[in-house]
Amino acid sequence: MSVTVSDFPTAPAWQVSQWFNADRPLDLAALRGQVVVLHAFQMLCPGCVSHGVPQAERIHRLFAQDGVAVVGLHTVFEHHEAMTPVALKAFLHEYRVSHPVGVDVAVAGAPIPATMLTYALEGTPSLILIDRAGRLRLKHFGRLDDLTVGREVMRLATESGPGVDSCTDESCRAV
Amino acid sequence: MSVTVSDFPTAPAWQVSQWFNADRPLDLAALRGQVVVLHAFQMLCPGCVSHGVPQAERIHRLFAQDGVAVVGLHTVFEHHEAMTPVALKAFLHEYRVSHPVGVDVAVAGAPIPATMLTYALEGTPSLILIDRAGRLRLKHFGRLDDLTVGREVMRLATESGPGVDSCTDESCRAV
Amino acid sequence: MSVTVSDFPTAPAWQVSQWFNADRPLDLAALRGQVVVLHAFQMLCPGCVSHGVPQAERIHRLFAQDGVAVVGLHTVFEHHEAMTPVALKAFLHEYRVSHPVGVDVAVAGAPIPATMLTYALEGTPSLILIDRAGRLRLKHFGRLDDLTVGREVMRLATESGPGVDSCTDESCRAV
Amino acid sequence: MSVTVSDFPTAPAWQVSQWFNADRPLDLAALRGQVVVLHAFQMLCPGCVSHGVPQAERIHRLFAQDGVAVVGLHTVFEHHEAMTPVALKAFLHEYRVSHPVGVDVAVAGAPIPATMLTYALEGTPSLILIDRAGRLRLKHFGRLDDLTVGREVMRLATESGPGVDSCTDESCRAV
Repeated sequence: MSVTVSDFPTAPAWQVSQWFNADRPLDLAALRGQVVVLHAFQMLCPGCVSHGVPQAERIHRLFAQDGVAVVGLHTVFEHHEAMTPVALKAFLHEYRVSHPVGVDVAVAGAPIPATMLTYALEGTPSLILIDRAGRLRLKHFGRLDDLTVGREVMRLATESGPGVDSCTDESCRAV
Repeated sequence: MSVTVSDFPTAPAWQVSQWFNADRPLDLAALRGQVVVLHAFQMLCPGCVSHGVPQAERIHRLFAQDGVAVVGLHTVFEHHEAMTPVALKAFLHEYRVSHPVGVDVAVAGAPIPATMLTYALEGTPSLILIDRAGRLRLKHFGRLDDLTVGREVMRLATESGPGVDSCTDESCRAV
Repeated sequence: MSVTVSDFPTAPAWQVSQWFNADRPLDLAALRGQVVVLHAFQMLCPGCVSHGVPQAERIHRLFAQDGVAVVGLHTVFEHHEAMTPVALKAFLHEYRVSHPVGVDVAVAGAPIPATMLTYALEGTPSLILIDRAGRLRLKHFGRLDDLTVGREVMRLATESGPGVDSCTDESCRAV
Repeated sequence: MSVTVSDFPTAPAWQVSQWFNADRPLDLAALRGQVVVLHAFQMLCPGCVSHGVPQAERIHRLFAQDGVAVVGLHTVFEHHEAMTPVALKAFLHEYRVSHPVGVDVAVAGAPIPATMLTYALEGTPSLILIDRAGRLRLKHFGRLDDLTVGREVMRLATESGPGVDSCTDESCRAV
């Protein structure tokens, strides 16, 4: 028996205490029908600053017309006193980040924030791809090269979503 | 009236005098059903050496399982005395190029070789994408970033080809 | 009349409120006899993070045996609420900075800190070279390539200092 | 007993069959008084093309006013049929190399050319530094970072040469 896309689990909701670059809170359920690229990072994580954050911004700009939503998630699990929302705001300004970024909600008495726990992320940067039907299709910790990212995001972008049915009784049309 | 993929012209055949990294001559018509990434380069073109050739090799390795064929084309239009087949062979060895590379046939009395003329290429490096139905879908002169290339190659890789019908009388399946 | 090194002004003292990677406060006067590389940066300045800070660390490691002291100076002139000493401490840890770094003292009611004003720095990153006799020999705002930096630091490192007398009984010659 | 610069051996003459970017043959002995940066490379050696050759050109441009002569040496020890003088000429043109480059003379029946043998070079790229007195001061096979190169070239550039006498009536002191 082979694996099909329907075997992938539904991506859980994220929990965000504050949003930047967004008019109102972003809800994963409300993004159903779009491909969601979720990028977990910390503003003082060198690999995030040099690679992950600029890559997320490039995806945001390149795939804007393809029904792809890029969402940054500030998953602070160390140096909490340094990576505050006010510091994050300055960081996003200085690094010219224009895509929406949410602050993963802190868990009382624990270093790892809520969404990071829910998604069982190993660390930062992590890249998560969610398809148009809300299924978790890829979760990668560490650096992922641009060619692979372009391939994987486009793979999902070319799939039809749950509400964008590509077949009628009489015919099927290409998405 | 909108543009559809059927509006794209059929990609013309290439003319090659010698092949490297190939057991036998490669024929564009015989690759019908596959996506073809044609990479025109010159071994003494700095942008080809630093960017185009390694990118073509990355595409070759990453998309091997997706029905994508990468073909290099040595389109020598200057320094003909330096960029001979014997020099190309050494170049391909030193730069660890494993994808097939053909030598564009010289045109008597003219600097620009035949396939380069047929495709009306501006220079090197140039990247050409041909879909599963043999249509010329993209032609780009100069540097194209990896994220864009991953996106465009995957766009074509997810399309069904002419002989790979995705619908039977009873159902349609996703490619 | 040509310019000689004696025409360069004496480098003014820095004013630091807190030190990192140092057992005790560093005093410019106490470094007389050494070449001092002063690197002004901000932890949320992209050019500092990608270029200036790692370069300062490379100078620190390479020139350690040449009587060259590298001193970082955190000259916060914007986003003061984000670039606090506690945030700087986390930054230095995450970016593996091992050379001494001082926090330029804030000036009440003004955005630009004291040493930055004294040295009339245009912004960050800035690289300042002070010779063994305490003279300000180079002040550069922006990126300076490694080859140039290696050349300029070594130029000063090969000069004798005030205590390394180049005089004989009869004459003194310029270093 | 410590090592002094006078312990370094005299750099042997190079043997060149053809020069590029030079009005007349360059002779090591005639460069006495200058620092000589000798860069051994092959035009189809990837590390030479991406790193060594552009670095040699940067040294040439930056240290032109410091009495430093940069000399490239094409030490072909493999793919002789590909790396001919005519191919080298095209390479130097395409890569905008402006410093003088000599072709190391072939040795009948042997793959390694004469100067490469004389200097006992391990391979390409190799960087050789010769001081103003003609002594071989550094020989490095492989990549050497710009900061180190800037430091080492300047170390020699600040030394006085044989014709720049450091002697007084009573004594001579080592540079």
